[in-house]
Order: sequence, then structure tokens, then C-alpha cells
Amino acid sequence: MNYRLADKHFYAIIPAGGVGSRLWPLSRADAPKFLLDLTGSGKTLLESTFERIVPLTGPDRVFVVTGYAHRAAVKNQLPRVLDTNIFLEPSPRDSTAAICVAAAIIARRDPDAIVGSFPADHLVTAPAEFRHVVREAVEVAKQGYITTVGITPTGPSVAFGYIETGDAVDAERFPNARHVSRFVEKPEEDVARGFLADGKHLWNAGMFIAKAQVLLDVLRENRPRLAEAIDRIADVWGTPEQFVIKDQVWPDLEKIAIDYSIAEPAARDGKVAVVPGDFGWDDVGDFSAVARHLANRGSGSLAILGDRARVISDRASGIVVGETDRVVAVIGMEDVVVVDTDDALLVTNAQNAQRIKQMVDFLRASGRGDVL
Amino acid sequence: MNYRLADKHFYAIIPAGGVGSRLWPLSRADAPKFLLDLTGSGKTLLESTFERIVPLTGPDRVFVVTGYAHRAAVKNQLPRVLDTNIFLEPSPRDSTAAICVAAAIIARRDPDAIVGSFPADHLVTAPAEFRHVVREAVEVAKQGYITTVGITPTGPSVAFGYIETGDAVDAERFPNARHVSRFVEKPEEDVARGFLADGKHLWNAGMFIAKAQVLLDVLRENRPRLAEAIDRIADVWGTPEQFVIKDQVWPDLEKIAIDYSIAEPAARDGKVAVVPGDFGWDDVGDFSAVARHLANRGSGSLAILGDRARVISDRASGIVVGETDRVVAVIGMEDVVVVDTDDALLVTNAQNAQRIKQMVDFLRASGRGDVL
Repeated sequence: MNYRLADKHFYAIIPAGGVGSRLWPLSRADAPKFLLDLTGSGKTLLESTFERIVPLTGPDRVFVVTGYAHRAAVKNQLPRVLDTNIFLEPSPRDSTAAICVAAAIIARRDPDAIVGSFPADHLVTAPAEFRHVVREAVEVAKQGYITTVGITPTGPSVAFGYIETGDAVDAERFPNARHVSRFVEKPEEDVARGFLADGKHLWNAGMFIAKAQVLLDVLRENRPRLAEAIDRIADVWGTPEQFVIKDQVWPDLEKIAIDYSIAEPAARDGKVAVVPGDFGWDDVGDFSAVARHLANRGSGSLAILGDRARVISDRASGIVVGETDRVVAVIGMEDVVVVDTDDALLVTNAQNAQRIKQMVDFLRASGRGDVL
Repeated sequence: MNYRLADKHFYAIIPAGGVGSRLWPLSRADAPKFLLDLTGSGKTLLESTFERIVPLTGPDRVFVVTGYAHRAAVKNQLPRVLDTNIFLEPSPRDSTAAICVAAAIIARRDPDAIVGSFPADHLVTAPAEFRHVVREAVEVAKQGYITTVGITPTGPSVAFGYIETGDAVDAERFPNARHVSRFVEKPEEDVARGFLADGKHLWNAGMFIAKAQVLLDVLRENRPRLAEAIDRIADVWGTPEQFVIKDQVWPDLEKIAIDYSIAEPAARDGKVAVVPGDFGWDDVGDFSAVARHLANRGSGSLAILGDRARVISDRASGIVVGETDRVVAVIGMEDVVVVDTDDALLVTNAQNAQRIKQMVDFLRASGRGDVL
């Protein structure tokens, strides 16, 4: 493969966590969303994430943070990632811990490191364009900004958070980069329509590119105890002490998303920039999104993930996910979601993504973790 | 068990055929509707049919007609039926052949026989009342009428055929029996509403009670070749020749429902009577009907046939039939039909019974008979 590196100091961090409850029973504790092929491409979301990033960094500068339970699967799917670049979390501690521990380890190896954090379970249909945007973001990050990538909205989505853009960063050098005024949580539909109309708002794709030192400095300002704990882990990384310290410190780390610990406070201080991008991004957060991407592949009104020959339908739209070798017959259903796995079957429709999550919570609470 | 026989010459014929395609994938070629327990009662429809009839006839005068493939299952479910009272059809030849061959065999044993034909796959929730009505029908049949049982409609059903009633048969002796003016096929909804309003129409439950000789005479008048062929089979029944003759004659028997070969022509000649009845009858022809009967048993808005503990639902109505040990989750669906079996899954809604049948035909035509 030909690499055209973004920068010799540029490192990618892939936090590979999160089950993706809204995709149950396809996604499971032992088969989380990032380990799945949701588009029938033959590649999992994690594999695709690695492949679209590695031309920017080379394989030696890709760092993965994941749970102990997924170590074997991650190593199997990403054989080119170095063992010393895989950080195994004893338990989930949200994105600040995952990303910053990696940034802290990388910063000790390379004080000039620029890190980019890229979720392991998103979809990008135009990876070359993605890399083009990240290259610009790396250049902006070199100026000291925490730089994010904002997706130009294609509709008034209420499933994504938004980024409100402000003034240009430096119109001469960076034609596209703008300051970020603020981050906005998933809005109500009328608000989302306003965002779409005003042209000032972008979708937040959860990517952050920054000098490792800048990222850690902002963390230190806003979450000093968390920053200190992360330093303790990073200080002994690669030494015989590493497991002892990690197991001591990790369980008490504050669980907080990087959006709250770093991105929002930094935005208030004018330290965040955004580069807009259009590269077919989706977080494929629910079965509607999965159906949409399968439909784009020309599957007709009923999208099918699995063996198409086993699915028969009559006047049906929506999606069938078939993981078993059974015949699945769907008759006269609109926007249906049928997920057929060995030990669990889900039947719902496209409007119920949030309730799937609630049902997963209910199953856990009622002692049926065996199917989660 | 205490028998209170309807008449010492009264015999019951149970034609046990028909897969029940609208109940696929629960009903199968090797597990047809009559062999299934559709109400969660612990008894199959065939067993229940036998049990509600046997007090009227005693076990020795119950005659079953079924396919070779179901011999073992029928004998297993009805151990009290005599081997000499089971006629095995080499192939399905519709109801005239099934019922009349049994009537012809019975008539040779008992020239004064009165036979009553009762479908094996219908449901009756008030069997004592059913027997009360049949007793009256037997008395009417003794007068030479082909006597049917008409169900007082509880709604403008378009799923059943109707019986149009005429004058009383003999108001002194039979307070309820009336002449049948004509039989009406499943009507359109507006016609059904008219039938419900006029009070002259009853549902056709497919039961016929008549002297065996009367039944066979009417057949001879209207379908002489079929009557002759049936006579050939009955003449040698119980002799060493029986299998040879049956296998020779059976394949060429005309396939015709008894409604057309006997009931309708006889009605035109004023030879058919009807006794109205209200005994919780249903032909449980589709999953809506199954759901209805499960719902009557207090299952809430989502009826469940199978292990209730494995079905979880959130704002769902309709029916789940679970034959596997999987968890079935149904979220936000109205009138849904989910049938979960080992090798086939059906997802549809209550309005699509007819399309299930079409899908079964499609599966057969496309070489997937393995799941039928």
C-alpha cells in the first residue's frame, strides 16, 4: 500500500468500545457493533476504520483502545496493529479515559505527537475524501487547535449532535476551517430544521485531532484528577509495573465523554476548530441506518443483511438481518425490522430504535444477560 | 366416561385432511393444522374433535379418514379409534371422496346408519351445547334430511360461507330446524353486513348429518361416476382385495367438495335442513383466529402460543407463536403475526392471511418444499 502520510508526527487513536445496544440482537456484548460487518461489504466497521486511516499514519502509528474481552477479535481483525499499540481497558470508562490514556502514552513516545481520535464503529463511504479532510485538520491542529471534523448535514437529523461554526480560523492558509462556537446535543426536530436552514451547523462525527500535549493540557485544566490518574498509567506503560498500576487506577477513573471533559470547555475558550467534510459519513446507530446503507447498495425496498436467498417477501419494506439458516418470510409490512439470530429474534419497526435500547436494559435487569 | 348416545345408528366421520396453509409455518405437510394444539389447551384440534363427539357415538362408531402420512400421528392422538375405522387416503381427493367413502363403508355395516361429518380442525368452546345441537340434527336427519349445523353469526365475517334459512321443517317436533334455501360462498363485507342484519343467515360450519343411504343417493344422482367408484372401494373394504382396489380407483376420483357435490344440489331440491347452534365455533382458519382464542384466555394484547417466558414485548399487539427456545422481542407493532419455528420464520400482520397461502404456493413452486 502507498502511504501519503498526513504528518510524521500524526497518530491515530481508535477507541473501540460500546456495544451498540440499538442494534441488538445483532450486536452483543461479545460481538459489539465495531466487530460487525453492517453493510455486507465483507469488512467489519473496525477493519474499515483502520483501512481508511492507515494511509495517513502507517500501521505503526495506529493505536487501539478496547476491552480485554475483545483483545483476540481486535488482534484478529487488525493484524497490522502493534501489540504495544493496543491498550486493554479493564472496564469501560467512557471516551475521555480511552482517548487520553492513548494520547498520554503516545506523548511520552513523541512529545510532538498530533493525535486524531476516530470512532471504530462509524461508516465512511468516501475514504479518500475523508483523508483529504483529516489532512487539513492535522494542519489546523498544528496551530494549537483541537480540531474536529464536521459533516455537512443532508437533512434535519435528530440522531446526531451538531457543531455551531463561527469565524474562519485563517482564511489564507485553511480555506475551510472555522472556529467552533459551541457543541449542541441531539436537537428536537424543529431545532434541527433551523440548523439545516442556517448553514452554520454541522453534524458532530466524534472525531478530534489535536497535539497530544494540547489535549492533555485542556484535560488537566478541566479534570485535574482524571488527568493525573491517566498520567500515572501512562508513566509506567511498557514497564513491568504497567498492569499493577492500571488495575489500581483504572476502576476509579471518572466516566465522562470527551465532548464534556475537553471539547466543550475548549470551545468556550476559542480553542476548537472544525473542518467541514462530505465523505458519506454515518454512525449507523440503528437498523434504519443499516437499512439505508444496504438500500444504497441496490437491495430494493426490503434491505437484507445476510443470505438473500433465504428471505422471501411480499409487499414488505424495511430490513431483514438473517444470521441463521432459516427461511424468513415477510408479508405486507412497512418499515419492518426483523433480526433473526440463533438465540434471539427481534421484530420491530424503524421508529423504535430507542425502545430497543430500553428492552436491552430490561433484559439485563431481568437476568437474561445470556442473550445480550 | 358417561355416554349419552345420540342414536344407536349414529356414526361420526372425521375427515382429517388439509394442511391449513394460512397457518404456515406452524402448520406443515407433516404437521397439519388438525394435529396441532392451536389454543394452548394441551389438546390438538383432532383430539378435541374426537372428545366432543365420542359421547354421542361411543368410540366404536367414530370413523377417521386421513392421509397415509398421518396414520401414526392419528393413531397416537386417537388411541380409542378402531383400526378398522381408519381409512387411509393414498392422496387428497377433497371432502366428497373422504366423507362418502366412509359413509359407504359404514352403510355396508349398518344399512340404517346415520352419519355425521365433523371437520377435524375446528374449534368448539362449548362442547355440551354442541352435542345438544347435534342430537337435534340427528333427529332431523332421521326424517330424511341432509342436516347441517348453522352457527349464529356474531359479526359480519367474510371468512366463512353462509347458509340462508327458509321455512321451519316441522315446528312441532323440531323447534329450531329450518329448511336451507341455499348455501352462499364467503361474501363481500357489505353483503355480510346484510346477512347479519336480516337474521336469516347462519355460518356454514361444514358439518353434515344424514342417513348414509340418503347421502349416497344424492351423490349417485349428481355424481354417478364418483358414487360408483366409491362403491367399488367400499364393496371390498375389509377383504384382501381392499388395498389393490383402493390404489386402482382412488387416484382417479373426482376432487370436489361435498358442498358442491351434495349439499348445494340437495338444497335446491329442498332436502337440506339446518339446526342453528351457538357453541363457540370457529374454524381457526388464520392467525387472527388463533390470536382471538388465545386472547380469550386472558393473554393481554399480545397473544402468545408457546413458552410465554421467552416472549418480551413493548407496546405490541397481535400474536407470537414460538416453537423454538429463542427469546422473541416484539416492539411497537400493531396486529403483528410472528411465527418462530426451527427452520422458518414468518413476520406479517393480521390482514395478510390470504397472502400467506400465496407465499406457501410460491415456496412450493420454487423448490423449497422442505419448509412446507
